[in-house]
Amino acid sequence: MTDIIYWNGSFVSEREARIEPADRGFTLGDGVFDTMLAIDGEPVWGPEHSERLKAHAKILKIAFTLDIEATATVLLEKNSFKKGRYAIRTTVTRGPGERGLAPPETQHPTIIMRASPAPEAGKTVSAAIARSVRRNEHSPLSRIKSLNYGDNLLALLEAKERGADEAIMLNTAGNVCCASASNIFIKERGKFFTPPLEDGLLNGISRAKFMAEHKAAEESISEERLRAADAVKLTNSILGTRQVSGFKA
Amino acid sequence: MTDIIYWNGSFVSEREARIEPADRGFTLGDGVFDTMLAIDGEPVWGPEHSERLKAHAKILKIAFTLDIEATATVLLEKNSFKKGRYAIRTTVTRGPGERGLAPPETQHPTIIMRASPAPEAGKTVSAAIARSVRRNEHSPLSRIKSLNYGDNLLALLEAKERGADEAIMLNTAGNVCCASASNIFIKERGKFFTPPLEDGLLNGISRAKFMAEHKAAEESISEERLRAADAVKLTNSILGTRQVSGFKA
Repeated sequence: MTDIIYWNGSFVSEREARIEPADRGFTLGDGVFDTMLAIDGEPVWGPEHSERLKAHAKILKIAFTLDIEATATVLLEKNSFKKGRYAIRTTVTRGPGERGLAPPETQHPTIIMRASPAPEAGKTVSAAIARSVRRNEHSPLSRIKSLNYGDNLLALLEAKERGADEAIMLNTAGNVCCASASNIFIKERGKFFTPPLEDGLLNGISRAKFMAEHKAAEESISEERLRAADAVKLTNSILGTRQVSGFKA
Repeated sequence: MTDIIYWNGSFVSEREARIEPADRGFTLGDGVFDTMLAIDGEPVWGPEHSERLKAHAKILKIAFTLDIEATATVLLEKNSFKKGRYAIRTTVTRGPGERGLAPPETQHPTIIMRASPAPEAGKTVSAAIARSVRRNEHSPLSRIKSLNYGDNLLALLEAKERGADEAIMLNTAGNVCCASASNIFIKERGKFFTPPLEDGLLNGISRAKFMAEHKAAEESISEERLRAADAVKLTNSILGTRQVSGFKA
């Protein structure tokens, strides 16, 4: 069975959907996305994901209309994904454009939503602190889920080469930022700390939930402090809260 | 007439070509590109573009086989683009992948080549120094033409809002880096200077040609020095050498 995806207003089999070669999401990373968990056919934290995706698109001045929760619910139904945990990825781009960086005057955003079985949540992982690349806290993109995931990908490739499951990224000032696809928390004498958004990290929805639940405080965190922490946790809507078992040299 | 494009080994009309929704170039910016000028059916600086695209793909560990010059020549023929200046854009991505950041074990790269009429070269432009975003010299991506053009796009959007034609970008250290789609040179008492690659800029092919022709020297350049320069030039393979007429406040 071919999976059904949502594609610019229709539900179609994935092989029928087509991204144009001139789509600026493909050519320039000109778009944003969201990854939302669904359990037993129901989106989790739907309103938060919906609001955030719109806010992130606004940073790139992309306007679009989509009821994420309702669309995700129909998508799951159409795929008969009734029981279990699924990851719903929504991608919104500025749509096709002529060559060059300047956006077209009239925008026809591309909207894609796919559902995939979610990987196991709450795993324990080993980590490596990425040396080949740092996150750019001097860019608004460091605080949104844009299609520009190249830096995080380089960090993850390096971590895998060094034998670790995950990469911890520092920002250009050398402070701890996040993992390649998670926010980060450290525990010191029973209290949790996480870096502030200004340090160049995504305003993760599970980060906000974890902060509220554990009364975590925002503070810039040095690499030394990370290594000395009593515990290190990574939060991600799909992967849940992962514990870091240790750091690769 | 629909334009003909090169798509994974075939020449097809553009509307027949299809990027899969799961292509990592589309979902994550996991790919690189090159933009090469062609004049009267002949690629310009073909070997340099070919070598650079392969080197840039290697940074992301993407391997592919393509004779850029020969393919571009056929592409121009098939489109009857016999006379005049055309821009040839080649995009190479890691190809489709499952959800998540980790690359698939077996890669099937996507390769697209399109030809478009080139805009007028050698224009004079006004510039604005971007305040909303800086380039990340702490990332290898700052030195390659990856699909992650979001930072440059934000800079250009800001410049246009401020009434300028182009954006000049600083790096995170505050030094002059490049324009949104060009390298930069300043002229002082008859001598040209350009920032070194380590400052976070693309190894532009027209930059290398301009350096050789004008015996330009590499030096980090402060914003003050940029503003005080006798002349400021922007180099780009397609747009040629553009003169900056002045800076918007």
